[in-house]
Amino acid sequence: MTIENISSTKAFGGWHKQYHHQSTALNCTMRFAIYLPPQAEQQNVPVLYWLSGLTCTDENFMQKAGAQRIAAELGIAIVAPDTSPRGEGVADDKDGAYDFGLGAGFYLNATKPPFDQHYKMYDYVVSELPAIVEAHFPVTNQRSISGHSMGGHGALTIALKNPKQFNSVSAFSPICNPMDCPWGIKAFRGYLGEDQQQWQQYDSCKLMQNSQQFIPALVDIGTNDNFLDEQLKPHTLEKIAQQKGYPLELRMQPGYDHSYYFISTFIEQHLRFHAKFLKIN
Amino acid sequence: MTIENISSTKAFGGWHKQYHHQSTALNCTMRFAIYLPPQAEQQNVPVLYWLSGLTCTDENFMQKAGAQRIAAELGIAIVAPDTSPRGEGVADDKDGAYDFGLGAGFYLNATKPPFDQHYKMYDYVVSELPAIVEAHFPVTNQRSISGHSMGGHGALTIALKNPKQFNSVSAFSPICNPMDCPWGIKAFRGYLGEDQQQWQQYDSCKLMQNSQQFIPALVDIGTNDNFLDEQLKPHTLEKIAQQKGYPLELRMQPGYDHSYYFISTFIEQHLRFHAKFLKIN
Repeated sequence: MTIENISSTKAFGGWHKQYHHQSTALNCTMRFAIYLPPQAEQQNVPVLYWLSGLTCTDENFMQKAGAQRIAAELGIAIVAPDTSPRGEGVADDKDGAYDFGLGAGFYLNATKPPFDQHYKMYDYVVSELPAIVEAHFPVTNQRSISGHSMGGHGALTIALKNPKQFNSVSAFSPICNPMDCPWGIKAFRGYLGEDQQQWQQYDSCKLMQNSQQFIPALVDIGTNDNFLDEQLKPHTLEKIAQQKGYPLELRMQPGYDHSYYFISTFIEQHLRFHAKFLKIN
Repeated sequence: MTIENISSTKAFGGWHKQYHHQSTALNCTMRFAIYLPPQAEQQNVPVLYWLSGLTCTDENFMQKAGAQRIAAELGIAIVAPDTSPRGEGVADDKDGAYDFGLGAGFYLNATKPPFDQHYKMYDYVVSELPAIVEAHFPVTNQRSISGHSMGGHGALTIALKNPKQFNSVSAFSPICNPMDCPWGIKAFRGYLGEDQQQWQQYDSCKLMQNSQQFIPALVDIGTNDNFLDEQLKPHTLEKIAQQKGYPLELRMQPGYDHSYYFISTFIEQHLRFHAKFLKIN
């Protein structure tokens, strides 16, 4: 479980760092980024995991969201993995589409060849990456999770399946019901095959419907998001939350779209939300 | 002087917008970005011009600096031009270098062919762009200017040459003495020819030495900036400021580098600095 530091940049008194490592779950070399707030020089800090959307790497959120300022104030580390396995030998969409294959791992464990050889992003984010982070950095085992779009789907599904592992979950513009939208159907068919029973384990609506243990959840979506009606379907999830009494706050933000300008506007509120549930020393 | 809107994105209650227009000064189609804070819906607001560094476009600062949050609080618009003329027929470095030609206009008026046909970034930033901005947007004629690296050089030289037009100037990691560093010598030789008399009009040290009218100036540079000693030479400028009594505050920031992570850390202080000198309604 060795990791190789490939960049270190000071930001808001803390450090943004990138690492390479050989991933067991993904069977390839992966890169991730961590922001360590200044408090991490004195004590262990809790961690927010951030899952990015289609086409992204570990860099988009770190460069564009402006989260480090608030993380530095609150004393929270942020970890951002890549969005899929990478490298030679990792299968891609046959047409190089942006919404399947490289950059589009959908945070699941693929079972269909050839994707089952590397596309195990669920195991990577749930197990391998936290183990690495907690072995190598001054962090506690207090974790929350957030993400955007495909990464919002990832954050919600992973939190719903692992309520003991995460204290809170939030999402920007998440794909809330992937079994019922073009992005999700394409991904599930490609990674999991035709059996829709298999798809249910990665659908937030299904997972919430069957959930027994709850954690606080915050979702922001812009009313001018081009993907709102066809791909995101937040109101399907909201309806289930209401039926179940799940502590989900869904906020429709007037005039905002699907971009990082939207994320940067509300990331402070998300970090303050998570800080309420992360035990900070 | 028509301009064409090509994007509008809500951010921090205001709007980030991009425009295309035919530039008279540059003799080509240019793109610029403007952030209009929420206050601009009710009243005219002052403007901070931001000049970016080598290889950048209007997008880098707007996406990475996190400035909109503070601009929205203070009621300041931000305008970000491109860093050079663009398009077919615009001469580039013969080897496609990153530090000359496209993306590297150095905010001067080229006199040497073939660059004299389009490379008039000085005229564009000083005259054409403010005229366009003040004709089309709800802004006042209160202006400040800032920039990074090559754009820090641009901000300092333009402010030193036009102290009546700008209320204050700031810079991150600016090229302070381009006549005496590799980036500057290459650019000045290529755009202006061998006559070093001509170079002096775009060298902050020479300009400050000859300055009659002062405006408040703030410069931040990271001590881990890879370009510090060879390219930036802030202490040459600082020495002249001390001799002249020029109101320049130079701050060496320990551990920070040349990146946007550095800019994002201190942009709030720069905006609050400018706000003190911009007459805000």
